[in-house]
Amino acid sequence: MTWQTYLKQNEARFLSELFDFIRIPSISALPSHADDVVRSANWVAQRLTTAGVEHAEVLPTGGHPVVYGDWLHAPNMPTVLIYGHFDVQPVDPIELWDSPPFEPRVENGCIYARGASDDKGGMLTPILAVEALLQSEARLPLNVKFIFEGQEEIGSPQLPAFMAANRDRFACDLVVSADGLQWTADEPSLVVGLKGLAALQIDVQTANSDLHSGLHGGAVPNPIHALVRILDSLRSPEGKIMVDGFYDDVVALSEVEREQLTAVPFDETAYKASLGLDDLFGEPGYTTRERNWTRPTLEINGIWGGFQGEGTKTVIPNQAHAKITCRLVANQDPANIIRQISDHVARHTPPGAKVTITPRSGSSTPYLMPTDHPGNVAAAAVLEELYGQAPYVTRLGGSIPVCSLFLKELAAYTVGFGFSIDDENLHAPNEFIRIRNFERGQRGYCMLLKELAETLTQGSH
Amino acid sequence: MTWQTYLKQNEARFLSELFDFIRIPSISALPSHADDVVRSANWVAQRLTTAGVEHAEVLPTGGHPVVYGDWLHAPNMPTVLIYGHFDVQPVDPIELWDSPPFEPRVENGCIYARGASDDKGGMLTPILAVEALLQSEARLPLNVKFIFEGQEEIGSPQLPAFMAANRDRFACDLVVSADGLQWTADEPSLVVGLKGLAALQIDVQTANSDLHSGLHGGAVPNPIHALVRILDSLRSPEGKIMVDGFYDDVVALSEVEREQLTAVPFDETAYKASLGLDDLFGEPGYTTRERNWTRPTLEINGIWGGFQGEGTKTVIPNQAHAKITCRLVANQDPANIIRQISDHVARHTPPGAKVTITPRSGSSTPYLMPTDHPGNVAAAAVLEELYGQAPYVTRLGGSIPVCSLFLKELAAYTVGFGFSIDDENLHAPNEFIRIRNFERGQRGYCMLLKELAETLTQGSH
Repeated sequence: MTWQTYLKQNEARFLSELFDFIRIPSISALPSHADDVVRSANWVAQRLTTAGVEHAEVLPTGGHPVVYGDWLHAPNMPTVLIYGHFDVQPVDPIELWDSPPFEPRVENGCIYARGASDDKGGMLTPILAVEALLQSEARLPLNVKFIFEGQEEIGSPQLPAFMAANRDRFACDLVVSADGLQWTADEPSLVVGLKGLAALQIDVQTANSDLHSGLHGGAVPNPIHALVRILDSLRSPEGKIMVDGFYDDVVALSEVEREQLTAVPFDETAYKASLGLDDLFGEPGYTTRERNWTRPTLEINGIWGGFQGEGTKTVIPNQAHAKITCRLVANQDPANIIRQISDHVARHTPPGAKVTITPRSGSSTPYLMPTDHPGNVAAAAVLEELYGQAPYVTRLGGSIPVCSLFLKELAAYTVGFGFSIDDENLHAPNEFIRIRNFERGQRGYCMLLKELAETLTQGSH
Repeated sequence: MTWQTYLKQNEARFLSELFDFIRIPSISALPSHADDVVRSANWVAQRLTTAGVEHAEVLPTGGHPVVYGDWLHAPNMPTVLIYGHFDVQPVDPIELWDSPPFEPRVENGCIYARGASDDKGGMLTPILAVEALLQSEARLPLNVKFIFEGQEEIGSPQLPAFMAANRDRFACDLVVSADGLQWTADEPSLVVGLKGLAALQIDVQTANSDLHSGLHGGAVPNPIHALVRILDSLRSPEGKIMVDGFYDDVVALSEVEREQLTAVPFDETAYKASLGLDDLFGEPGYTTRERNWTRPTLEINGIWGGFQGEGTKTVIPNQAHAKITCRLVANQDPANIIRQISDHVARHTPPGAKVTITPRSGSSTPYLMPTDHPGNVAAAAVLEELYGQAPYVTRLGGSIPVCSLFLKELAAYTVGFGFSIDDENLHAPNEFIRIRNFERGQRGYCMLLKELAETLTQGSH
């Protein structure tokens, strides 16, 4: 029996198993559901074992657990680590659900339930694919390890320390993430870049107390004026970041990459309308998409100082504050960026103002996987076969911390290979997954493991 | 008997009467003391009558009352309206007082009590002077009216409507205010200019909701960046206001006025040290004192938008706000200034931002009395004789609303002729008045009425 036939013949059972998995309300954000997260971990370990995966184990992290498993019987072949998560988002506002969130409901080819798409349907997919390959061929084309976590929806607080302490166990040549999106229900995409983050606060101090603008107006510095001067100097009127050296480490877009980005559908008129904006805004010389996905940004996230109440107060305040985050792209370094901004601010501080720059939490390293990496080459080939068209090569303006974490701790890139769609109400009421993509994903993982056995052994990777 | 002798012989009685006046706790800010404000008004009306003033009357205003009185037996002579207030500030924090605030205590030639200086000692002074003149000479050198209010310390909410409705009763050629300061205990000053005020709020709106800086960063306008751009454009880096037409109506300083200002003592080093500032700041081309007293200002009083909490939030907010007040000088018009700022903001609004300008409460007209006005000439002559040196000609960066109110409703300037000193803990615990200045003020008012009878009848005023 081929793996294709095996998948076909077990469709109903696989759906039924997904329903069982979904029925465990493994909400990581709610302490009252901590036991459900553990139950969910145990279910995953059991399911790995059933699939033929060995050494399936629930590992403590100090928080919600991690599930490990492996199949390592392909000597001299590369090892792939497959990632996903079995925790889910809370269900509030519960009254907006059309049916109970942890009781799967099937309608129009979709399964409605919390976690159906993010990420229980996603992470079950490669387990089922591995079972199909082992049942049909008695072996996998390369070595496979699994890592499933139970804390993704709360920011994976224990994962960095856990990975640093378990590098050997998870050593691999490539990570494949089963937590991710395709472009639409019928169009594939390959995410190759994620942004990093640098966060800081600017505090401006002038006199030793707030001052009466009648007694002191015209004589003394105003920290809000100093702050707006500093902040306005950070970007040109057109939106270019004016901090010396800020763009120095940015990997320039190649012509091929610009063409790939241009090929990705984008309706700018509809985008503006959806946000209620008359105009978009940003660095000259780049398309909106290029700016959003491939160019670093500097945004003031908050500002405050002086009187914010009703009416009028004739005060010259003595403090003003702003919070800034920069979204970074490869190969910018968050600490270096904060140094450059600090230098810039020092040069642009008006007389009479004392300015302090404080780095804030949330710093993360940008991530860029070469489009021609054998992992991407394999995924692109499989996606093209699955969908009948080549994947759009995309990036995200946000971060997926595990990608940088795996690159740092395992020296391995992460290929995104998930089959969710962003219209599937992830994190919202009435989350659903399309059954045809759940099944397409199972075929996809069988094909991907075979393809990776080829591409990862060609060349020097 | 001369008025000088009369004042001397009645020193003890006058002090005793001031004590009686002080003992009435006429705190206008506290509703529980409303009856004390009325009691105080009745005391004043009675004291006017005792002094020989006629038609003394407590007039309703809809709030705390006004006391009127007149002596109008100098036909063909000018009429002077003498102003003061009988309400006082609250006494909190009471624990910082060295003795009960409404029980006068004499120490080292000073009377310690709430209201001793501001303004019960001040407003009793001209009443005693008028009594001395009437007792010694049976007449006054010109016609005199009195207006004493009971709501100065809460911003005189009913006074504008009251004055508008009583223009004829208070018609006069000059107002003399017994609520005011001299430069030091032994150096006189004459305040000729007060600033006005224009207040507004700027609200910036971009998208229809806050946006995730990962999903939308680089693509959309940020209202805080738009706001800091607008605000930074309002002043040059050196502090000159860049709003078109802003300075057009400013009455330029004459050389004489600049010399008068230079003659006023000012220790810039001590001033900076007292505020904890390394540098002062303001419009180039003017001294600190000139900027503070004679040049209009534009100050951001408050700013807010986006995330102000602990830590980091990667938000692109959709709103940002700022409050601005301008201190104005003659002959700037608050409504015109707000129009000019609105025009400027419209021209400096970046793409993608919608900006609203809302005028706010507190608008007031600047005030400038010509230094050579016969009222000032008379006051300067008297002060020089009282102190042995000519008064410093000064201005204030703040406003005294009654000056503009009297100019508007009565078409009469107000000469400041008060004898308090700004070290006398006005509005603070342990307020006091120097007895020698209380007595100097009584002589001063006798001399001033005589002098005004001369200067106001010379020339065309």
